Amino acid sequence: MTAPARISLDRLNTASRPEFGAALGAIFEHAPWVADTAFDARPFATVATLHDAMMAALRRAPRDQQMTFVRGHPELAGKIARAGTMTAESTSEQGGLGLDKLSDAEVAKFEKLNGEYARKFGFPFIICVRRHTRDSILRQFERRLALTKDGEFAAAVNEIGYITRLRLVDKVDGPGLPVTTGRLSTHVLDTYNGRPAPGVSVALYEVGASARGLLKTATTNADGRTDAPLISGGPLRTGTYELQFAVGDYFRHAGVKTADPPFLDIVPLRFSIAEPEGHYHVPLVVSPWNFSTYRGS
Amino acid sequence: MTAPARISLDRLNTASRPEFGAALGAIFEHAPWVADTAFDARPFATVATLHDAMMAALRRAPRDQQMTFVRGHPELAGKIARAGTMTAESTSEQGGLGLDKLSDAEVAKFEKLNGEYARKFGFPFIICVRRHTRDSILRQFERRLALTKDGEFAAAVNEIGYITRLRLVDKVDGPGLPVTTGRLSTHVLDTYNGRPAPGVSVALYEVGASARGLLKTATTNADGRTDAPLISGGPLRTGTYELQFAVGDYFRHAGVKTADPPFLDIVPLRFSIAEPEGHYHVPLVVSPWNFSTYRGS
Amino acid sequence: MTAPARISLDRLNTASRPEFGAALGAIFEHAPWVADTAFDARPFATVATLHDAMMAALRRAPRDQQMTFVRGHPELAGKIARAGTMTAESTSEQGGLGLDKLSDAEVAKFEKLNGEYARKFGFPFIICVRRHTRDSILRQFERRLALTKDGEFAAAVNEIGYITRLRLVDKVDGPGLPVTTGRLSTHVLDTYNGRPAPGVSVALYEVGASARGLLKTATTNADGRTDAPLISGGPLRTGTYELQFAVGDYFRHAGVKTADPPFLDIVPLRFSIAEPEGHYHVPLVVSPWNFSTYRGS
Amino acid sequence: MTAPARISLDRLNTASRPEFGAALGAIFEHAPWVADTAFDARPFATVATLHDAMMAALRRAPRDQQMTFVRGHPELAGKIARAGTMTAESTSEQGGLGLDKLSDAEVAKFEKLNGEYARKFGFPFIICVRRHTRDSILRQFERRLALTKDGEFAAAVNEIGYITRLRLVDKVDGPGLPVTTGRLSTHVLDTYNGRPAPGVSVALYEVGASARGLLKTATTNADGRTDAPLISGGPLRTGTYELQFAVGDYFRHAGVKTADPPFLDIVPLRFSIAEPEGHYHVPLVVSPWNFSTYRGS
Repeated sequence: MTAPARISLDRLNTASRPEFGAALGAIFEHAPWVADTAFDARPFATVATLHDAMMAALRRAPRDQQMTFVRGHPELAGKIARAGTMTAESTSEQGGLGLDKLSDAEVAKFEKLNGEYARKFGFPFIICVRRHTRDSILRQFERRLALTKDGEFAAAVNEIGYITRLRLVDKVDGPGLPVTTGRLSTHVLDTYNGRPAPGVSVALYEVGASARGLLKTATTNADGRTDAPLISGGPLRTGTYELQFAVGDYFRHAGVKTADPPFLDIVPLRFSIAEPEGHYHVPLVVSPWNFSTYRGS
Repeated sequence: MTAPARISLDRLNTASRPEFGAALGAIFEHAPWVADTAFDARPFATVATLHDAMMAALRRAPRDQQMTFVRGHPELAGKIARAGTMTAESTSEQGGLGLDKLSDAEVAKFEKLNGEYARKFGFPFIICVRRHTRDSILRQFERRLALTKDGEFAAAVNEIGYITRLRLVDKVDGPGLPVTTGRLSTHVLDTYNGRPAPGVSVALYEVGASARGLLKTATTNADGRTDAPLISGGPLRTGTYELQFAVGDYFRHAGVKTADPPFLDIVPLRFSIAEPEGHYHVPLVVSPWNFSTYRGS
Repeated sequence: MTAPARISLDRLNTASRPEFGAALGAIFEHAPWVADTAFDARPFATVATLHDAMMAALRRAPRDQQMTFVRGHPELAGKIARAGTMTAESTSEQGGLGLDKLSDAEVAKFEKLNGEYARKFGFPFIICVRRHTRDSILRQFERRLALTKDGEFAAAVNEIGYITRLRLVDKVDGPGLPVTTGRLSTHVLDTYNGRPAPGVSVALYEVGASARGLLKTATTNADGRTDAPLISGGPLRTGTYELQFAVGDYFRHAGVKTADPPFLDIVPLRFSIAEPEGHYHVPLVVSPWNFSTYRGS
Repeated sequence: MTAPARISLDRLNTASRPEFGAALGAIFEHAPWVADTAFDARPFATVATLHDAMMAALRRAPRDQQMTFVRGHPELAGKIARAGTMTAESTSEQGGLGLDKLSDAEVAKFEKLNGEYARKFGFPFIICVRRHTRDSILRQFERRLALTKDGEFAAAVNEIGYITRLRLVDKVDGPGLPVTTGRLSTHVLDTYNGRPAPGVSVALYEVGASARGLLKTATTNADGRTDAPLISGGPLRTGTYELQFAVGDYFRHAGVKTADPPFLDIVPLRFSIAEPEGHYHVPLVVSPWNFSTYRGS
């Protein structure tokens, strides 16, 4: 990830109006006026305050202007996405999840939901895709279709808060950065030998309703941990995951005589993440004949 | 299972030679002489002793006669099976596993192994299929191909012991029945409320290298157990299984507020069985945020 | 326990009034009129209904008669107890807990509470001692001192229900016996070897605020259980207990090499019982390096 | 602990022989010749190599000189200790354990062992007391009495290695310090709420055969940990410990409704430490109805 250099909050606090706009105008989709309004609230002590000011500019704008802004967002996985007219930020965020490689059936389902949603609300469905798996987006889509128009408009603005917070943190450096990253980690304890388990192969899968995808493989180090968290550096995606631990191989290599085949070989731990900015530590405490896990932190 | 009435050991101990042969002659494949030899060792105090006497008759027979007997067994999943010439006992045992519904690729793999095996050993591969999943049979096939001819002949006779022990127990009733049945059971403990968890949906899958199959579904009762063991009444099949517990639904119905989605929804417990006549109790001790299991008995 | 033969409910249902009174007159302390009133409600389908009828007779009696009855109970551990004027039933129940061997300090504390209680309520403190440890009785004493006079009178009558239910079940046999027994059991699972742990020494202690007392020792059998429940045959006493398992000896005898001294040697499990008629299963799932327990049933 | 400033390894590498001897002469009890011999092996790349050189000087000395050195050590808890003639180092090390406050019975036991030991071996019992609890010292005393004279002399020299390694690390700073510190820590996970448990009172006891002593109390912080390890900064003492966690109070303050009294109130975790320089992490994973622990690191 060779991210472009970020601009400092100090610099923004002393920049001219055009410079400020050039730096932050694209944070809110097709709405440079949001940054322009926030300009007047300078100086900002923290990046979080700057984001608050931008959100306040949006929330205090006339409803018509807000609606025009919301309507300026691309339809998720819909025609606009395929016509290539999304802003660079939207393209990158939706591509990260693989939504640009939808199967025909999935495109059909998304388009049906898009259609119902547009008919009911008159604006496109907006969600911070970097905080959700594909399954979670579908679940949110269905839930939010049941809201009132006002309730759903508030939900959309709330999601815009998540989206723009991420964009702002990508662009601006300085004190008081809002928390936009979560972390998933694991740890294997060998209760047969009373020590951390080194050399255990670990695989992390995303588990969807119709399919699963391998996200990452790693091997535990001498401390029974993976050298790096399994996921970090951004929000976690709300959704369901499965960790698989090659416990049978580990105990065989450790010279432990067990059953043939071993009672525990590949141990799956399935769990869901509900807090994209949370810390999830999901350890495996294991002997050849039992195991346990818990949500740690 | 409407099994035919079994003959009593007492009756066999006083039967005429022809009656004895009629009752037990088919236990050993195309080899009524095994039962005929055992007849001379009467009376038998237990069914196990009767089986021992039949195995002794086989093991003491001239090697030529033993080999003819072994060669009289059908090739697993091979031409004989499809030509319908297996004995009724073999057909029933192999069908129970689904081996009669092999895919072309699996037929090819089995036939290749059958071919290599026949070339090396000159007799068909014999295994007590009721004690193995399909994956376990393939693993045994590959392992036994590496044995010496004498070692493998002994392995084949050993398997005939398992096969005929099961057939004998199906036919004869009396004291001292050999143990031919295993048991798989489960139990769900709710450590959020400190009680057994009633109403939990449980599904048992067989997990193969290339596929998985649903074996059974059940719901826990007021004691957190299933009304009947998940598997019982016969040997367990050596192989890999997965229990899945609908823990998310259980806690939601119990009114427990957890995360959305819940940290634990479907909890899989994957384990292997290595003792077909063993008792496997695989409980789930679970709260909304942790779980453990162990091999109990 | 060579209990005297119990009278059958059938017999009571057809007994004469004097016979009925002779059998049941002592169930309610110094109050044969309770049984006499219940006599008129015959026949009873269950023993529980008979007890309900006796309690109804008490509850429907004039308040003066109720109060006279309640005042007829001995002061717990007080002067009456030491003067030997308690009914045989009260003596036996209080002696079972060791309350007759109070230290001077404990006598002083009980007498002080008795005094405050008598001043506030004008009747002796009544509690079904067979359902409580000494510590639990003291806790109840302090709590109930804080109640209103009406609230405490109801609490006293409630306790009389527990006391007389136990006495009735000791005297009368028949259908529909009220549940007056709890059960405490344990089970040791060895997750190093994947089997129940036989031969583990288990000790059960009552843990009081000022002292602990050994209640029972046992050794686990081949199934990892004790041959009999640790407590059964009567109500459990509300209170705190500690199970101690000689896990270090067990693994040493099993030839498991661990640390010196072993990480786990004597494993204490401390827990409290709150339901005297409940089933408490408190298992130990243990390897040389970890253990867990839970309330099972 | 206001330790005197340590001398640097660099300084020692360039010091004159008298300066070197003044700095290190007291490391080996009454044996400045050990440092003097090591002086000739300069320069030392690490503190560990310096210690190795001192131990080599001891091990290569004539047996008579070694024996004189060993005999120069005080008798543990014996007459010398009470006569106040121990070196300052010995006094401080033995006092840390409380061995200077022995009861008469314990003094008698130690003296009896000292006597038997002296008769058998002709030199005083030497052990690095900072690596043992009092109970562990007694156990070592009894075990080592069973060794041969050569075996025990080697054991004594080995202990002198531990003792002098600690003294050297107290005196000298520099690269390659030998590892002389262990660590005991804990962590409380609340599996009812799926989070670390803050505000849990934790008490650490040393558990001896005849008594127990409170070593430390702490309260868990927002991360469920104690702010500092329970023991650190020196070797752990081989011996038995008990952690007690006020789980009942924790759940009550968290508003969790459980039983009355709660199934789990004070949860004791008893374990032994066998590696004085090891890391012991002993977590509590707990709901109101179950708990588990394991040796982590």
